Amino acid sequence: MGRATDRRGVLRIDLDAAAAGRAPVRRPDSLSVEEPLEIRVGPAGPGRRKPLAVTMRTPGDDIDLAIGFLLTEGLIRSAEDVQTAQLCAGAETPNTYNVVDVVLAPGVPEPATDPARNFYTTSSCGVCGKASIDAVRTRSLFPVADDPLTVPAELVAELPDKLRAAQKAFDRTGGLHAAGLFTADGALAVLREDVGRHNAVDKVVGWAVRQQLLPLAGHLLLVSGRASFELTQKAWMAGVPLLAAVSAPSTLAADLAAEAGMTLVGFLRGRTMNVYTGAHRLTVDA
Amino acid sequence: MGRATDRRGVLRIDLDAAAAGRAPVRRPDSLSVEEPLEIRVGPAGPGRRKPLAVTMRTPGDDIDLAIGFLLTEGLIRSAEDVQTAQLCAGAETPNTYNVVDVVLAPGVPEPATDPARNFYTTSSCGVCGKASIDAVRTRSLFPVADDPLTVPAELVAELPDKLRAAQKAFDRTGGLHAAGLFTADGALAVLREDVGRHNAVDKVVGWAVRQQLLPLAGHLLLVSGRASFELTQKAWMAGVPLLAAVSAPSTLAADLAAEAGMTLVGFLRGRTMNVYTGAHRLTVDA
Repeated sequence: MGRATDRRGVLRIDLDAAAAGRAPVRRPDSLSVEEPLEIRVGPAGPGRRKPLAVTMRTPGDDIDLAIGFLLTEGLIRSAEDVQTAQLCAGAETPNTYNVVDVVLAPGVPEPATDPARNFYTTSSCGVCGKASIDAVRTRSLFPVADDPLTVPAELVAELPDKLRAAQKAFDRTGGLHAAGLFTADGALAVLREDVGRHNAVDKVVGWAVRQQLLPLAGHLLLVSGRASFELTQKAWMAGVPLLAAVSAPSTLAADLAAEAGMTLVGFLRGRTMNVYTGAHRLTVDA
Repeated sequence: MGRATDRRGVLRIDLDAAAAGRAPVRRPDSLSVEEPLEIRVGPAGPGRRKPLAVTMRTPGDDIDLAIGFLLTEGLIRSAEDVQTAQLCAGAETPNTYNVVDVVLAPGVPEPATDPARNFYTTSSCGVCGKASIDAVRTRSLFPVADDPLTVPAELVAELPDKLRAAQKAFDRTGGLHAAGLFTADGALAVLREDVGRHNAVDKVVGWAVRQQLLPLAGHLLLVSGRASFELTQKAWMAGVPLLAAVSAPSTLAADLAAEAGMTLVGFLRGRTMNVYTGAHRLTVDA
C-alpha cells in the first residue's frame, strides 16, 4: 500500500558515451507504480457489492480516491452518503488490495449501471467500459515477440526531433500530444495529434488498419509524454515491436511490454534513452 | 472538422512587467480543441446503431480514431470487419459532426454492452461509463461563481514551487502527476500524486470530503500538466473557485470554467501566467 514507485532493470544507453567507447550500463530504475483499482459500490448487507469502475492508478490513498471519484461523478454529495469504505481483497494472489468496497448510506441511490452506459473515454484516457480488473486486458492477435526488427539506437534517438518537426500544431498551443509511426529505416509513416495520447495512438492505428498495414511488424511507435499500460497494450494490439516514449513508463507498461516481447524505450531525450525491455532490438556502435 | 486549435481570450499576467508598471495584457490565445466524439457501432440496417463510447478528443481523423479504438479494444481485427464508417450528425446545434457511425461487416459480433461493463478509467483517464455525449457532464451542487475569493497573482505564481517542493516522489520517477489544494493564503492543505492527474485530483477531493471541507470555497487547486474538461469538471464538483495548471488548458476546459464562473489559470510558469476565465479573482500590484 502506498507503493508509489518500484524498481525495474533498465539498459541506459548514452550514445556519446558509447562513441567514447563506454558500453551501455544495466542498472535498476525507479518507475511510478500503475495498478488497477476496482471500486465497488452498493447498499449494506452480506451481498457482494457491484463493480462500478476500474481505474489505473498509483496505489496509496485509495479510499480517498474512491470517495473523490464518487463525489466528482455526482454519485455522492458528502461524507454522510458513505456508510463505510474499505480496502479489501481482490481475486489476485498475492493479494494486492486493489479493491475498494464502498457501502452507501441508507437512502443513497445506487449508481445506474444500465447497458447504455458503458464506454467513456476522456481526453487523457483510453479504453473504458470494463468494470472488473480481469476485463482490463485485451489480447493481441500478433506475436510481437517474434518480430526480428533490429535498429541502431542512433536511429531511435533521432525520432523525437523528427516527430517535433512534423508537429506543426504543437507550437501553436503547447497542448497536443503526438504519436508517430516510423518504418525501420526511421522514415515517418504517419503522425497524429490529440489532446489525449491514447487518441493520437488510436488515430495512428486506425490509419494503419485502413492502409492494410497490420500487423505493424518492423515498425516503431513514438509517443510524446509517458508510456502507460494502456498505450503499451494498444501498441501490442497493433503488432508494434518497438514503443518509445519521451518520458517515463509506468511499472505496468514495462511489465506488459516484457510479457509481449516488445521493446520499450523511455526517457528518449537527446542522445540518451532507457531501454526497459527487448534491448536485443537495439544496436549500439562502440 | 480538423479544427485542432481555437482561440479564446486570455489575460496575460507577467509579474515582472507589472512591477515595472506595465499592466497585464488581454489577447487571444490558441488552445487545443477538445470535443466529445461518440462512437456508435452495430450491424447494417435502418436502425440506429448503439453508442459504444464517448472519447474527449481533438477533432480530425475521427474515422481513423474510431477504427483504431475498435481494433485496440479487440472488437475488430482488420479493415474487413468494418463495412462502413462515417461521420454523422449528432443532436447538437450547430451540428459539430461529433459522431462516428460504424457498420460492422456481416458476421462480426456486436460489442457486449452488459451492465457489468460500465466504468473503466485508465491511468491517464477519468470518469468512464458514459456512452452518450449528454451523459458526459455531471452537474455541480456548488455555486462557484459566487465565491468571493480574491488572491494576489503573486501568491498564485508561488504555488508550483510549493507543489514541487512537496513532491518527493517526483524526483524519483519523473512519472507522477500531482494535485495540490491550497488555502487562500497560499498554504498547502493537501498534496496527492498519481500516474493519472484525474486520480490525483480525486484523491485530493476524497480527502476533502472526509475532512468535511466541501464545498472547497476559498480554495485553490493546482494541477501539474494540463487542464482538461474533466479536471475542470472535477474542480467544479468539489466547489473550487480557482483552478491553476502548469500547462495549457483545452478549449472545453476554458468553456466549462466560464460556464461555472471559475477562475482558470494556465501556463503558470515562473512569474507569468495566462488567465482564461474569472480574472476578477486575481489582483496585480502595479
